[in-house]
Amino acid sequence: MSHVPQTTVFRLPAYLRCLDQARAEGAVVINSADIADLSGTNAAQVRKDLSYLGDLGTRGIGYDVEALAEHITGVLGLTARRRIAIVGYGRLGGALASYVGSGEHGFDVVAIVDTDPAKVGTSFGDVAIRAFEDLEDAMLDARVEIAVITTPADSAREVAARVAAAGIRAILNFAPASLDVAEGVTVRNVDLSAELQILSYYLTNGG
Amino acid sequence: MSHVPQTTVFRLPAYLRCLDQARAEGAVVINSADIADLSGTNAAQVRKDLSYLGDLGTRGIGYDVEALAEHITGVLGLTARRRIAIVGYGRLGGALASYVGSGEHGFDVVAIVDTDPAKVGTSFGDVAIRAFEDLEDAMLDARVEIAVITTPADSAREVAARVAAAGIRAILNFAPASLDVAEGVTVRNVDLSAELQILSYYLTNGG
Repeated sequence: MSHVPQTTVFRLPAYLRCLDQARAEGAVVINSADIADLSGTNAAQVRKDLSYLGDLGTRGIGYDVEALAEHITGVLGLTARRRIAIVGYGRLGGALASYVGSGEHGFDVVAIVDTDPAKVGTSFGDVAIRAFEDLEDAMLDARVEIAVITTPADSAREVAARVAAAGIRAILNFAPASLDVAEGVTVRNVDLSAELQILSYYLTNGG
Repeated sequence: MSHVPQTTVFRLPAYLRCLDQARAEGAVVINSADIADLSGTNAAQVRKDLSYLGDLGTRGIGYDVEALAEHITGVLGLTARRRIAIVGYGRLGGALASYVGSGEHGFDVVAIVDTDPAKVGTSFGDVAIRAFEDLEDAMLDARVEIAVITTPADSAREVAARVAAAGIRAILNFAPASLDVAEGVTVRNVDLSAELQILSYYLTNGG
């Protein structure tokens, strides 16, 4: 596999989702135009993106749905389930725990941390909510791979530094704060306020 | 104001956040390097982005914090509160209603729609949860500006088409589905599974 550009990586989940859908509908072969339609891009882009993953399709025929889904699953590192921590167990943290914890998505919630003494010691399924002071131990004990930060903005940088120091290399950050992490730690930001503000811009200025 | 590139628009919320922070800390003037630090970009990018909004800074001095915050607030169309609908009132929809409904972010939840008969007729604050059949009326009655879609993937396209037909021009989509909307409707997608999958890629392949 050659070096895969970031923008291609960002589109792989959409391709995988559309292959899963095609598979559910009984399709055996799929062409780049159909993948593009279902994932909101164009056929040339699909072919280019997939060419980074190896020599996968057959010209004039298309891609084997099953084989391509399996290949992308492997590239995304999703052949084994990933272990997730939720740091900040408020309403959003709770909703995300339910979402991830359903187990449907290939991820498991294995640790939850919160500052509220009323929550610490209670549990979500069989995951005990642990105190903020025990953050590092909670990460290590549960062998967490990805930390989801849903704390208020003013503690997010400290949380990020502490989870990174505990060896976590992947962070999904919902706090409206720009995190400054060590090299080798990947951060993905989801900023709900920012998304609404961007929509507001286009309402005001035209799409 | 000249045409503002999309990538610039996408960074404006981070700039506004950092100006709010600077203002809270009592700063009167801020330079592009400080804005860049707080918003995770570089000073040249900040200067270039802000130059699209007009002739705002003073060379060698910087930007007036208050004036720039006010200007960006205006550009983002945030001088009046925006009216939000939540379509799909499950755990995620509920968490988003609480988040937006706190009122802190300049947005108000004015309509909620769900398919579950047990939820319809109950309310969130003073917003009555309405039936899926009444989607269009709910949008019109509450003069919704932005629809947040938190339905399952298989109904998201129908929901998007119906809210667009009801005149909504901005959609924040949390359903893992690529929406196909009419021209003039802006869609922002937040795909939580995809974010986790992208992080998984970098765990497997290096950051």
